[in-house]
Amino acid sequence: MPIGGGEAALIRRYFHALTAQRDGVELGVGDDAALLDADTGDRLAACCDTLVADVHFPADIPPEALGHRVLAVNLSDLAAVGARPAWTLLSVTLPEKDPAWLERFSEGFKTLADRYGVALVGGDTTHGPVAVSVTALGWVSDSMGLRRSGARPGDGIWVTGTLGDAARGLELWQGRTGETVSGDPAYLVGRLFRPEPRLAVGQALLGTATAAIDISDGLAADLARVLEESGVGATLSLPALPRSPAFMAEGGTLRHALHGGDDYELCLTVPPSREAEMARLSERLVTPLTRIGTVEETPGLRGEDADGAVSALDPEGYDHFAERA
Amino acid sequence: MPIGGGEAALIRRYFHALTAQRDGVELGVGDDAALLDADTGDRLAACCDTLVADVHFPADIPPEALGHRVLAVNLSDLAAVGARPAWTLLSVTLPEKDPAWLERFSEGFKTLADRYGVALVGGDTTHGPVAVSVTALGWVSDSMGLRRSGARPGDGIWVTGTLGDAARGLELWQGRTGETVSGDPAYLVGRLFRPEPRLAVGQALLGTATAAIDISDGLAADLARVLEESGVGATLSLPALPRSPAFMAEGGTLRHALHGGDDYELCLTVPPSREAEMARLSERLVTPLTRIGTVEETPGLRGEDADGAVSALDPEGYDHFAERA
Repeated sequence: MPIGGGEAALIRRYFHALTAQRDGVELGVGDDAALLDADTGDRLAACCDTLVADVHFPADIPPEALGHRVLAVNLSDLAAVGARPAWTLLSVTLPEKDPAWLERFSEGFKTLADRYGVALVGGDTTHGPVAVSVTALGWVSDSMGLRRSGARPGDGIWVTGTLGDAARGLELWQGRTGETVSGDPAYLVGRLFRPEPRLAVGQALLGTATAAIDISDGLAADLARVLEESGVGATLSLPALPRSPAFMAEGGTLRHALHGGDDYELCLTVPPSREAEMARLSERLVTPLTRIGTVEETPGLRGEDADGAVSALDPEGYDHFAERA
Repeated sequence: MPIGGGEAALIRRYFHALTAQRDGVELGVGDDAALLDADTGDRLAACCDTLVADVHFPADIPPEALGHRVLAVNLSDLAAVGARPAWTLLSVTLPEKDPAWLERFSEGFKTLADRYGVALVGGDTTHGPVAVSVTALGWVSDSMGLRRSGARPGDGIWVTGTLGDAARGLELWQGRTGETVSGDPAYLVGRLFRPEPRLAVGQALLGTATAAIDISDGLAADLARVLEESGVGATLSLPALPRSPAFMAEGGTLRHALHGGDDYELCLTVPPSREAEMARLSERLVTPLTRIGTVEETPGLRGEDADGAVSALDPEGYDHFAERA
């Protein structure tokens, strides 16, 4: 899932070296999904994400939510390259045979898969500590796809939906006293457990957005990857970060919105000449699209507060290995 | 990896239900790899296998061997449908950052990947209990591919290489007293740690073999799946099962050859009219191909011993969940 900081270094060092020379790999290790020349007009997009209990999800997550979530995070990677999802492969590791768990897990997976017409074409169950792994395959009808490396100075920085909900939802879930939560906390927990992959936005912005990434580790951390790969910097308008009413009502802070992971919204860069399209697209797709900043030549990520004061932002998103180093 | 017994039932019950209706899925959950219509002349083959420490490999396996093995078992699935491998995605879960381990793991993975021109196009590292997961993608230049369901009465049953080596190798590895093993035991352990995917055989037998499977759970268990999916039975000639000199010298038994898993040889069914091609193919590919039995109408799997006595064989291969049920 997250490819940044300590993990990004590991992947660069070891996994890039594994990429044998081969024609047809147009976008390989290190972006949200690979783009592969399948000798058709379209490009094949491929990605995989493994979710481990107590690392990527609370061990007491409802199985339906886990089924939804493991598929959603992969579809989100496809969304981030502008792909139409087609097929998935699923690997489930469980400590013991548990039909009731699998039934509930499958229900969550299937409901989301059906919504996007995605077919599960390969399956693998093993026993071991709880983990689930999905590979998602899809098609990109544009030779370039959306990638992380195309942001240019002057581009606007946009996000879908609202930020920080999932991070605040996780805190509320972990701090709950009863079996479940309701009201605004339930909305926030739902954003954690059942993220909605922004597939329609990704597909619609092919040829329009100059770069894209899905927000798994937090806005600052993921945007920093786009900036680094594009060789640019940016300033965010902190008051512009979109926050949901439930988030505001339930103690969400700027820290959650900037650094909270797991929202699986898209962050995109769009040239000024295409900004007029964004409002129409937002209306057509019934998806909030908010301009939150501007790409600049000066490297680094900065935030401008309501008083116009600008300060450097540390992209301190969640990183699996870095946090333990 | 293994899809049989308890695991096969789980996959049938839960995963088949997850397969949304979608055009282009020509072979879905339950075979070695999925075959997908990519709107090209060829079919896209996709498979994924997760290996968990102490379940699929001894925790003290050398990292190079694990890197080789996790790729090999996936390439073996592609071999079993007759595919040419193209791309892989790799997910590595480790309890902590361990550059030395990753370096050695990568070396084993890369050596095998380079041999077949396979490109790693997606990577994911997370922390958690040791597990590695690979998705392999390839192309099948035949609209049918090799599948498990095509065996017909009268077909000969063939296997590549020798049987039981890996199972005996595992015993020798686990029972060793020093740090390493040498001589014949080393050969057998090498068969466990570094199985060779029979890609050339699978590709060469497209259009010739009527069914194929790779032997991960043991000859009897895997062949039983072919027979069940094809609605037929078979009798094996037990003395004909190919066994290596090292296997004979190091205490290998009929039980290992029939029921030992992890060899990743191919088991294929071939019509009598095509048998003449097998010797030529064996010579051309420098790969032993041995006829070990005959497909019959009568369901079930039987073994004929050197005296001509026939008895039923229980396909008792390794099954992750069944053995714990």
